[in-house]
Amino acid sequence: MSAELFAATRRWGRWGEDDDRGALNLLTPERVIRAAALVQDGLSVPCGRRLGTEPAVDNPNPALHHMLHAGDFAATQKGFQWAADFVGVAFHGNSVSHIDALSHVFVDGRMYNGASAAEVTSVGARRSSIEVAEGGIVGRGVLFDIPRLRGVDWLEPGDAIFKDELDDAGVNVEQGDIVLVHTGRDRRRDALGPWNTYVDGLAGLDPECARWLHDKDPSVLGSDGVSDVMPAADLEWPIPIHMCALVGMGIHLLDNLRLDLLADACAGRGRWEFLFVVAPLHIGGGTGSPVNPIAIL
Amino acid sequence: MSAELFAATRRWGRWGEDDDRGALNLLTPERVIRAAALVQDGLSVPCGRRLGTEPAVDNPNPALHHMLHAGDFAATQKGFQWAADFVGVAFHGNSVSHIDALSHVFVDGRMYNGASAAEVTSVGARRSSIEVAEGGIVGRGVLFDIPRLRGVDWLEPGDAIFKDELDDAGVNVEQGDIVLVHTGRDRRRDALGPWNTYVDGLAGLDPECARWLHDKDPSVLGSDGVSDVMPAADLEWPIPIHMCALVGMGIHLLDNLRLDLLADACAGRGRWEFLFVVAPLHIGGGTGSPVNPIAIL
Amino acid sequence: MSAELFAATRRWGRWGEDDDRGALNLLTPERVIRAAALVQDGLSVPCGRRLGTEPAVDNPNPALHHMLHAGDFAATQKGFQWAADFVGVAFHGNSVSHIDALSHVFVDGRMYNGASAAEVTSVGARRSSIEVAEGGIVGRGVLFDIPRLRGVDWLEPGDAIFKDELDDAGVNVEQGDIVLVHTGRDRRRDALGPWNTYVDGLAGLDPECARWLHDKDPSVLGSDGVSDVMPAADLEWPIPIHMCALVGMGIHLLDNLRLDLLADACAGRGRWEFLFVVAPLHIGGGTGSPVNPIAIL
Amino acid sequence: MSAELFAATRRWGRWGEDDDRGALNLLTPERVIRAAALVQDGLSVPCGRRLGTEPAVDNPNPALHHMLHAGDFAATQKGFQWAADFVGVAFHGNSVSHIDALSHVFVDGRMYNGASAAEVTSVGARRSSIEVAEGGIVGRGVLFDIPRLRGVDWLEPGDAIFKDELDDAGVNVEQGDIVLVHTGRDRRRDALGPWNTYVDGLAGLDPECARWLHDKDPSVLGSDGVSDVMPAADLEWPIPIHMCALVGMGIHLLDNLRLDLLADACAGRGRWEFLFVVAPLHIGGGTGSPVNPIAIL
Repeated sequence: MSAELFAATRRWGRWGEDDDRGALNLLTPERVIRAAALVQDGLSVPCGRRLGTEPAVDNPNPALHHMLHAGDFAATQKGFQWAADFVGVAFHGNSVSHIDALSHVFVDGRMYNGASAAEVTSVGARRSSIEVAEGGIVGRGVLFDIPRLRGVDWLEPGDAIFKDELDDAGVNVEQGDIVLVHTGRDRRRDALGPWNTYVDGLAGLDPECARWLHDKDPSVLGSDGVSDVMPAADLEWPIPIHMCALVGMGIHLLDNLRLDLLADACAGRGRWEFLFVVAPLHIGGGTGSPVNPIAIL
Repeated sequence: MSAELFAATRRWGRWGEDDDRGALNLLTPERVIRAAALVQDGLSVPCGRRLGTEPAVDNPNPALHHMLHAGDFAATQKGFQWAADFVGVAFHGNSVSHIDALSHVFVDGRMYNGASAAEVTSVGARRSSIEVAEGGIVGRGVLFDIPRLRGVDWLEPGDAIFKDELDDAGVNVEQGDIVLVHTGRDRRRDALGPWNTYVDGLAGLDPECARWLHDKDPSVLGSDGVSDVMPAADLEWPIPIHMCALVGMGIHLLDNLRLDLLADACAGRGRWEFLFVVAPLHIGGGTGSPVNPIAIL
Repeated sequence: MSAELFAATRRWGRWGEDDDRGALNLLTPERVIRAAALVQDGLSVPCGRRLGTEPAVDNPNPALHHMLHAGDFAATQKGFQWAADFVGVAFHGNSVSHIDALSHVFVDGRMYNGASAAEVTSVGARRSSIEVAEGGIVGRGVLFDIPRLRGVDWLEPGDAIFKDELDDAGVNVEQGDIVLVHTGRDRRRDALGPWNTYVDGLAGLDPECARWLHDKDPSVLGSDGVSDVMPAADLEWPIPIHMCALVGMGIHLLDNLRLDLLADACAGRGRWEFLFVVAPLHIGGGTGSPVNPIAIL
Repeated sequence: MSAELFAATRRWGRWGEDDDRGALNLLTPERVIRAAALVQDGLSVPCGRRLGTEPAVDNPNPALHHMLHAGDFAATQKGFQWAADFVGVAFHGNSVSHIDALSHVFVDGRMYNGASAAEVTSVGARRSSIEVAEGGIVGRGVLFDIPRLRGVDWLEPGDAIFKDELDDAGVNVEQGDIVLVHTGRDRRRDALGPWNTYVDGLAGLDPECARWLHDKDPSVLGSDGVSDVMPAADLEWPIPIHMCALVGMGIHLLDNLRLDLLADACAGRGRWEFLFVVAPLHIGGGTGSPVNPIAIL
């Protein structure tokens, strides 16, 4: 079934055989100009989570934040002193806000546009690395606030979001949009504490939403979960949205965003569109980057 | 002399005794709205350098980029496979594009607003960490393209830029602007190769430009060097612009930007203002963050 | 009670006011010669655990092991190729086999010999760093195999080991020995799986064993747990053996050893003494080191 | 020529087709017992260099040593406090004292015993990882102190050491020995400062010494350089001793040792043999480990 889904939504070759950028090609100057015109209130809202440096049941590989030089020397000294730090992170996974490059996932040994997985060597990706987004991702963002649409505080882990729900949400999606899906994950975590997202799952899109993505043709998809509903129904296609979006359609993904602040800001204004800016670090050969995307309303 | 400069430009208490944000307070909604209106061409330009993972004479502490899982397994396998990586960086220094939090530098044991250096402990900063910018920095950016103004390809290491030059540049600086200074560093590096910036220095602002900053009242200052001209004239005040801006005036700094692309984009349009977005990672207690700022013209 | 214990067993000044080596001073050439003479079977037994790079309930901060360069390039190429890796570890805690330097723990702001905790700055320890053991720790090792003495496979988390038990074990302890205590931790883990050692604890020495250490005067103490029974009975003295041994008596500690192989080797020979070698990495200013101690029977 | 050398000294299959340990198989219990009997003075001498955490011309990828928690909190507090650190290192290269596993180097896509380079995947080595030495390497060490033999303080970078010199040194090499070669590298560095070892080279064994290794049949080879004389005479066989020893003969290598202390200790006693212990960290799938080998005289 998922293999059929993958085949039905795949569009390799759309921007040429050698294309590594996928749906980022949709972010034309005209769309950037229209997106900037959406700024009405001058409010910038962060969509990146605090980097999780403490171990937790939902953070099995904590990020490293080390003070290389603290103020302990400086407090009693005259003149110039400084502090400095190191930050290290294995950003893929279910905890850190990050962007997935198109080289992050493979289906049958192939990444986006049919490039071989062997192009991702032990020293980095030679095709579709995150460097294709070094110029930043700037466009019209739209938010689907699913808890609000359902009249709940948050979705439960494992709750699926269906195509019809997206169609009936009252959110006008345009080609090239950056589509964000809020499931209330951080609200639930704040209220009930962390849970093991690998075992108990995350709310996310039903696999059939891949067809919706194919129809709507966004440039980027993001969620406060990992877009896919988890745990998977089909272990051979454990993250079908990732597989169809990244590999089949060339749609970059934003995982583990913080979207509660943006949901509140949108709800307060009755407006679900905004200028959205993602600025991946320029990591040569990287299969993604930690990010702190900014919505500007 | 620098002590006098520091005293003359310091404005602790301007936003209250407990303020940790400094001149970011100038980025009001009105200014954000006006900045967004500057987008005319729909062009986004990256201002972050490629993360330097290879040792070089100007990169003594290379960043780490490790593939945790490459495509070597995946190339010959059916179904789902993935790649993932780790990135680690000691971002302060003269190589990595980063933002300095106000807790990065101390003068006489004090950081911005008089907070004690002891507030930067071995587990992070309790005052003026980079978390004050977690919402993103969004504003009007203006570029001083010094090589163009001087009719040269680049400034030499150690070249000072003076106040009068900024005043005569034809760039209209408004209160709250994000001021960027291009010295041609990366052009020189591309042409002549890397040099030891700690020994041979970097082009940057003459210390007296601290008074210019005090007059112009920008929200943020950035450069393709480290804003300060180096090496220092006065070893007791080795980076007076850092000391006056971060500690005295609460102006966050952007160091080691890549500004040649932006200079070219501005020159081609005869327009030196743009929407500028910086999205620091949300590092709890961090004294800065690696960044890839985006200019949108 | 623990404060009394600490005061009763402390022996600051024993090797002079400036001493940073503590009981390592007991490892005289004569003792090294006698220890080497214990080698009868030519068997070397590792006492370090496999570095835990996978998250687990007993490994909340996994070690990093990254292949910087794998064989994926090399397999099809002529001539010379290579592979290389990076290893990183926050070795203190309840998982990694490591040695604690005398600068690892403080009581009332003091480390061993009364040195101030402020000597451990954000760039390393200026007193009693692990560098005092750079020459290696070589001596007579003796093993207390507590499960065997009790006729069980392993001790349960939280089980205390008492002084009398050590006295009645039939193990002859000499001054300057390296004393090892096997609790069966890894056997239990292999059989029942990992447990949260911070919550459910580890088997270890009852606090009163500090007096036994004071009497027996070993050079080093080690265990497959962390020497202290956990959880603590007294939250203000959470690890009294650590506090008395490291701070009061200057006895370096070996935590999280793997001792099941050594216990089997000793039991098979009816001999509980051996040459023991610990080779800490030479980490400037380090408060310890990951180690793989070797027993030679 | 080097290809001929490689073919002439290769002995794949010596301990069976599946063997991953190579010449470590020579470290029989009898040899361990005889080695322990060499301890006469009770002196332990470290052979590991201080971990280089500072950038230098001979240390392009500095090791990381970060204090996770310093004493800054503890100095003024009652009761228990602690300090802890993180250490991270890309140990291969020309700076860090380390052991090379047999999976570190490939010739024509093959490692020791003919195993494919593809066995070293992006998550570690499946053949001949350093885990084969987890039990420690214990044996008779012998030192060739080349500067003393030549009547100089140190050899110059690029100086080759020849077979005849080893034969005439008056050092009796037995099968299974751990052979160490001192070139005076650290003495030269202490006197003249660091140099770029990748460009200017290191003193080491002439490639023809591979035949000497084949004849003498040691278990392990080590040096204060990297055993190979560098720079290479033949760029296609850049490190022929590595290639012949690791790949052809299954001899583990110890690189970048500190041997000046051992040379002094041996010279003072007129004795060039000792018990030698190497204790690699148990790194699953590692192609080596940082080490601090200990000689016991």
